[in-house]
Amino acid sequence: MLGYPTHVYVNYGALSNLQNFCINNCGNPFTEGIFGTHSRQFEVGVLDWFARIWGIAMDEYWGYVTTGGTEGNFHGILVGRELFPDGILYTSDDSHYSVFRAAQMYRMNFVKVNSLISGEIDCADFKAKLLRNMNKPAIVNVNIGTTFKGGIDNLDSVMETLKTTGFSEDRFYIHCDGALFGLMMPFVKRAPKISFEKPIGSVCISGHKFLGCPMPCGVQITRIGHIRAISRNIDYIGCHQDATLMGSRNGHAPIFLWYALNQKGYPGLQKEVQMCLKNAQYLKDRLRASGISAMLNEFSNIVVFEKPQNEEFVRYWQLAVQGDLAHIVVMPNITVAQLNDFLRDLAEKRAIWLREGKHQTLCVSANVGKENCVCPRHK
Amino acid sequence: MLGYPTHVYVNYGALSNLQNFCINNCGNPFTEGIFGTHSRQFEVGVLDWFARIWGIAMDEYWGYVTTGGTEGNFHGILVGRELFPDGILYTSDDSHYSVFRAAQMYRMNFVKVNSLISGEIDCADFKAKLLRNMNKPAIVNVNIGTTFKGGIDNLDSVMETLKTTGFSEDRFYIHCDGALFGLMMPFVKRAPKISFEKPIGSVCISGHKFLGCPMPCGVQITRIGHIRAISRNIDYIGCHQDATLMGSRNGHAPIFLWYALNQKGYPGLQKEVQMCLKNAQYLKDRLRASGISAMLNEFSNIVVFEKPQNEEFVRYWQLAVQGDLAHIVVMPNITVAQLNDFLRDLAEKRAIWLREGKHQTLCVSANVGKENCVCPRHK
Repeated sequence: MLGYPTHVYVNYGALSNLQNFCINNCGNPFTEGIFGTHSRQFEVGVLDWFARIWGIAMDEYWGYVTTGGTEGNFHGILVGRELFPDGILYTSDDSHYSVFRAAQMYRMNFVKVNSLISGEIDCADFKAKLLRNMNKPAIVNVNIGTTFKGGIDNLDSVMETLKTTGFSEDRFYIHCDGALFGLMMPFVKRAPKISFEKPIGSVCISGHKFLGCPMPCGVQITRIGHIRAISRNIDYIGCHQDATLMGSRNGHAPIFLWYALNQKGYPGLQKEVQMCLKNAQYLKDRLRASGISAMLNEFSNIVVFEKPQNEEFVRYWQLAVQGDLAHIVVMPNITVAQLNDFLRDLAEKRAIWLREGKHQTLCVSANVGKENCVCPRHK
Repeated sequence: MLGYPTHVYVNYGALSNLQNFCINNCGNPFTEGIFGTHSRQFEVGVLDWFARIWGIAMDEYWGYVTTGGTEGNFHGILVGRELFPDGILYTSDDSHYSVFRAAQMYRMNFVKVNSLISGEIDCADFKAKLLRNMNKPAIVNVNIGTTFKGGIDNLDSVMETLKTTGFSEDRFYIHCDGALFGLMMPFVKRAPKISFEKPIGSVCISGHKFLGCPMPCGVQITRIGHIRAISRNIDYIGCHQDATLMGSRNGHAPIFLWYALNQKGYPGLQKEVQMCLKNAQYLKDRLRASGISAMLNEFSNIVVFEKPQNEEFVRYWQLAVQGDLAHIVVMPNITVAQLNDFLRDLAEKRAIWLREGKHQTLCVSANVGKENCVCPRHK
């Protein structure tokens, strides 16, 4: 059971009466609506917190608490499209499927860019594709941690590529999909910084992943100047300039987010991030020591390894799989003891599968690189 | 305080431990995902319940629990667009703003149709506009209760209009926005029926309105045959054919919906609906008796009346306002005693406002009809 946490690992005991209230943060968090029971103060508190870690001034950002990373991507890409109606959306192969869906939904011109083995965007391919489309503005989705491999697109290289191919800042929009790592990276020393001091347009994260909220939710931050592009005046809900996608919005989520952020605090979050990275390193090292191909990107808590060729095992441990690979996202709720249980179970069963001819050690070098592959040819 | 309910009026005590679980119904409700803690059984139970009242066989529908009416409209209209890529979206002036936003988001051709005074779509105008666009398929949003006036588009007239102007069933798609009334109308004798036995494509309702769920949520039902148009295979989340819009989805909401439906049961819901309609009638009659213009559509629990010209009063009672009108949605949590308090407060204060020249009795006949207007000219 090493999938995303099922038991909430934050003690939300103090919030147990919340379900007695229908809390609806309808429309814009910064405008008072007509509905009596809302949690806008908590929502704005959460947004301010993220604005601070992503380096944007309080009066220069706009944002809201979303239903998750997907809504964040939908919103960020829509803002990009509204600013550049004929822009082309660029994103790597390894992007979350909501990015591809946005392109289809929004009827955008769309160019898929190759990924490197790490999962991050291949800037050489990006450059080649930009050069073929010089006449159209670029809307770029930058992955701050791809879903499967945890590859981190190099934001600085992406910007440099845009610049050197002749895309000035008024001809591109960058949305950062920071679903998981967007919240972790600020706490990792030496990790590249996501910051609005760079010419990015929006960032989103998921709140039910690293923060462990009990419901899918997320945070979306963008520049206030951009938001006018998709604003409308809506008399009915008393929320002028509702630039959220969803209108009626879950008012419990911001309270859980606020509570988690304040209960953990910067030091608590930093400690959890460090623990996850350390445990991920431990898991990868132990897998490799057991003769199993495994990869762990720098600054990542996602360990990718050769897929156990047994459906029951995959299901039992809730491993996400893709082709010949499986992965474990080492979250704060995962202990070393659990990892040891998993490693022991895998080692024992794998030996049996191999003996019985039910498992073949595959070459996964094309997907994780030769240096991470321990197949007979590469070990 | 007559806005949408703030205190939940269903006793959800049995569910108070739910917040200790992160429940994510990721992707398609009918396909088992890899995430351990989900509430798909409850979700499918809720969907089956709605499929039954909307007259579609268990093996012919597809649906999911959404984040609310907005996502339902986004989904239904997207299905329509995928089926008819060059279709024109028709909807009345009085539609919820999410319908207009969908048109913009999805880059659809869009034709706004006039509304009648009741708020329902003007089929004469609809016909005229269809005739001007015979070469393009029609995607029609039908309001089963407009947000402000509670006007109910006549589904049969809409279909008849399509037929008589030469739109055969393979050249139109109808989405029914049943946010509030979609759940109430099945329990109102003589009310027109929403049913998949008619050539409609999708219906959505909101779960946090009539059912009183503590978080914004909703139900979306469509024909399974349609859904292939927007399906994709998504390996990562183990949810093949994820045709939901949001991917990660709140797994608490289906449990609350299921609980509310089962706790109330058909008889309980019927009783609540009847009580709401009766109380709405009472409110309208009392307003009129107090010399205040007021309108109540047939089968509706939304009382529209001349806006009190005092911001503090509007805010205190949480009245939604639009131009010269205000409305009260008479929900199950609103008692006659509360209505009496409101009526007394309004009568007393209005007398003072009138005396002090701070209120003028306006003619609102253009918005509610002469028969509902009690201005000096019409009373």
